[in-house]
Amino acid sequence: LEQIAYVNGAFVPLSEAKVSVLDRGFLFADGIYEVAAVLDGKLIDNASHLARLQRSVGEISLALPESLDRIQEIQKELVKRNSLVNGMVYLEVTRGADSGRDFAFPKADVKPTLIMFTSVKDIVNAPSAKTGIGVITVPDIRWARRDIKSVALLAQVLAKQAAAEANAGEAWMIEDGKVTEGGSSSCFILTQDDVIVTRQNGSEILPGCTRKAVVKLAEERQLRVEERAFSVEEALAAKEAFITSATVFVQAVVSIDGKKVGNGKPGPMTDRLREIYVDFARATAV
Amino acid sequence: LEQIAYVNGAFVPLSEAKVSVLDRGFLFADGIYEVAAVLDGKLIDNASHLARLQRSVGEISLALPESLDRIQEIQKELVKRNSLVNGMVYLEVTRGADSGRDFAFPKADVKPTLIMFTSVKDIVNAPSAKTGIGVITVPDIRWARRDIKSVALLAQVLAKQAAAEANAGEAWMIEDGKVTEGGSSSCFILTQDDVIVTRQNGSEILPGCTRKAVVKLAEERQLRVEERAFSVEEALAAKEAFITSATVFVQAVVSIDGKKVGNGKPGPMTDRLREIYVDFARATAV
Repeated sequence: LEQIAYVNGAFVPLSEAKVSVLDRGFLFADGIYEVAAVLDGKLIDNASHLARLQRSVGEISLALPESLDRIQEIQKELVKRNSLVNGMVYLEVTRGADSGRDFAFPKADVKPTLIMFTSVKDIVNAPSAKTGIGVITVPDIRWARRDIKSVALLAQVLAKQAAAEANAGEAWMIEDGKVTEGGSSSCFILTQDDVIVTRQNGSEILPGCTRKAVVKLAEERQLRVEERAFSVEEALAAKEAFITSATVFVQAVVSIDGKKVGNGKPGPMTDRLREIYVDFARATAV
Repeated sequence: LEQIAYVNGAFVPLSEAKVSVLDRGFLFADGIYEVAAVLDGKLIDNASHLARLQRSVGEISLALPESLDRIQEIQKELVKRNSLVNGMVYLEVTRGADSGRDFAFPKADVKPTLIMFTSVKDIVNAPSAKTGIGVITVPDIRWARRDIKSVALLAQVLAKQAAAEANAGEAWMIEDGKVTEGGSSSCFILTQDDVIVTRQNGSEILPGCTRKAVVKLAEERQLRVEERAFSVEEALAAKEAFITSATVFVQAVVSIDGKKVGNGKPGPMTDRLREIYVDFARATAV
């Protein structure tokens, strides 16, 4: 059965889900996206994703074509139509297709584009959840507004391709000697003093939804959390390292550039935070 | 009569020119573009644009789906089908549409996307060619590989929208106190000593095709050219300032952030270089 996608008000087979070559998402990367995980047919931490969507579009003065409530309805409808049990819903909003190509914003009568599609992934039982992943490091060459979740992702594409070629699961991006974030994830370490460290939010990184939830869940359990930048050397000297994202939840990092973190296996804190997060996800899914 | 566009081998009405929502140009800004001017039905400086296209795709390991010769044939065919006299041909190559969304490059059997469309513009007789334009300055917040002509243009969109809102014709981007380039143009000044100054190529700016031609044409006429960075203060103290691009050729800049350059009118060197460039364009058009 062919997958169903959503394009500007219509549910259509994925093979027919198209946008104009004049769409500003295609011409200028003038668009914002979000990815929400689906567990047992329900959306995970979706309010957080929609709040970030609202913030991102606001930062580039893009008006959403639908209310957040309506967007969630469409997400749910798409999950239903695809009988999606475990996986994710991708959504993208762009500044629409004008009659030609001009960098400046189009007139108000050009309606933003909203598209969604789903994909299948058993996040909870992913093999890498048990084994952990190796990561490589690459220079962070991105623009100055990484807090905006835009589709201008070419730097991340190149970073994650470099990781794939090195048989690594993620690329950690490095700026001024410190880790900013992964190509599509937030980075954490657990120090020898049992402090969970992750970089503070700011324009240098995307404010991760899963990162935010994990920090809150850890603090609620009286675990020590510090939000600050850390170096690769510090990560290699740590007890554990892990990443978070909407589509991996919490995932152990067992090596960096081929060097072991800790004993080279997922650590107990990572496993514990992963369990805590999965419980939170199930309990708050909509 | 509806305009004709080119999409992956087919010439179709622009309203039917579409790409998949899975196209990596739309999802990741994983694509390269070029814009070639058309004068009297012929392509201007097109070999230079195609050489830059080849370089840009090489920098992101993207294989062109057609040879450069074939691409030029398609450009010409599109000009003909649209009976285009004066204007431009836009072309974009992306890493194609895979069966899902994954940052890393797709398998080799995913064919890159190639699209083209045209638009009408009387570049030679544009009103701003006679009056010049005002520009504003904005911080350059782009990524570190501006020498790659990618469609990850959100920073330029925001810069040029700020210019539009200030009734300015372009935004000059500033980094470390120096002008890098315009949102979609190269920047030049003529010093009080009659030296034409434009920033040297490097990863900080796009190697402009029109910039390159103008520098060469000026040098051939024994005009003094220096390729180095300059500040806004230096530009305001200059005799003249101008920009170059494929779709404006050479255009006077008569004010920067509301302050006059020279006497606030297009200067004789700018006018001369514009004439020289138009002659070159006509003489070498294909």
